[in-house]
Amino acid sequence: MSEAPRTEDPRRPDTRRAPSVVLVNTGDGKGKSTAAMGMVMRSVARGWKVAVVQFIKSGKWKVGEEKIGLQLGVAWDTGGDGFSWDSEDLDHSAELSRKTWEIGKHRIGAGRHRLVVLDEITYPINWGWIDVEEVVEALTNRPSGVNVVVTGRDAPAPLIEIADTVTEMRPVKHAYDQGIRAIRGIDF
Amino acid sequence: MSEAPRTEDPRRPDTRRAPSVVLVNTGDGKGKSTAAMGMVMRSVARGWKVAVVQFIKSGKWKVGEEKIGLQLGVAWDTGGDGFSWDSEDLDHSAELSRKTWEIGKHRIGAGRHRLVVLDEITYPINWGWIDVEEVVEALTNRPSGVNVVVTGRDAPAPLIEIADTVTEMRPVKHAYDQGIRAIRGIDF
Repeated sequence: MSEAPRTEDPRRPDTRRAPSVVLVNTGDGKGKSTAAMGMVMRSVARGWKVAVVQFIKSGKWKVGEEKIGLQLGVAWDTGGDGFSWDSEDLDHSAELSRKTWEIGKHRIGAGRHRLVVLDEITYPINWGWIDVEEVVEALTNRPSGVNVVVTGRDAPAPLIEIADTVTEMRPVKHAYDQGIRAIRGIDF
Repeated sequence: MSEAPRTEDPRRPDTRRAPSVVLVNTGDGKGKSTAAMGMVMRSVARGWKVAVVQFIKSGKWKVGEEKIGLQLGVAWDTGGDGFSWDSEDLDHSAELSRKTWEIGKHRIGAGRHRLVVLDEITYPINWGWIDVEEVVEALTNRPSGVNVVVTGRDAPAPLIEIADTVTEMRPVKHAYDQGIRAIRGIDF
């Protein structure tokens, strides 16, 4: 598609500054957590204090971000277990998720970090392990300067309701569908 | 939505390893460039050599990523001008875009970086400043280990055609639509 370069500024002039926002990255496509990590990078560059709380952990995944995050001075907690289909003890996994949420809730409420990422929290919420109303309450009553990014598939309606920005990452075409395995460094 | 935890592994067993992939992040939503930056972070963590070529530049934007990128040892070129609606001399902007593409083409062809990000290249392509067929050729004939990430709205069909993975970032809800201005550290 080739079109004439746009010469009018499409941005609205009548905007106001919010003290902070809640962002949700959801959908079945790639880039939900990855975009959150990009935001971490950007926030660190601005001199912000940043906290990441990861709700899904597995031996192979997520190691890269954590390493660089810690190198950049990010407060990093990976309290969750793996995906439910990898779990050998669902009660234990649920218990781990709830403990991880306690960390997240504390990070948000303490107001010491200007960006808090709740990475892949939608999964334990949708599995019934974390109460969505409790998350909504923590986000709604957060200290005014605390921005929160929530990631994961199937973001629950109450979270979408209170979010300022919701983006759906939609897979148009996926190497995986064509039988190509995840590439270390690209996919994890 | 609450559902019983899934206990079957949904991943396909019959996958093969590709030497490298071409990813496209497109759509009108947030997170296209941000996800690319998250991928940069992940790749650096894996010890990869990474190059970023940015085709859209403005005084205020993009400064954060570049700073952290350079700190992480990323080869970083910002050769482009601003958006066309901010340009005071479209011929000059077009010329800058073509020079920036020469850098990108060189980075890809040289094979020295395992990840090359062509950030917001879709805009100058769609404005007719960079020939999409030349980009397609450079991606198709790239050295086997070079992964490329392309970002920007309205990714041209020939790019989508040759990409391994295409993700559309779709805005479900945007703070901006509600009149909230971009927040430094979150949006740029």
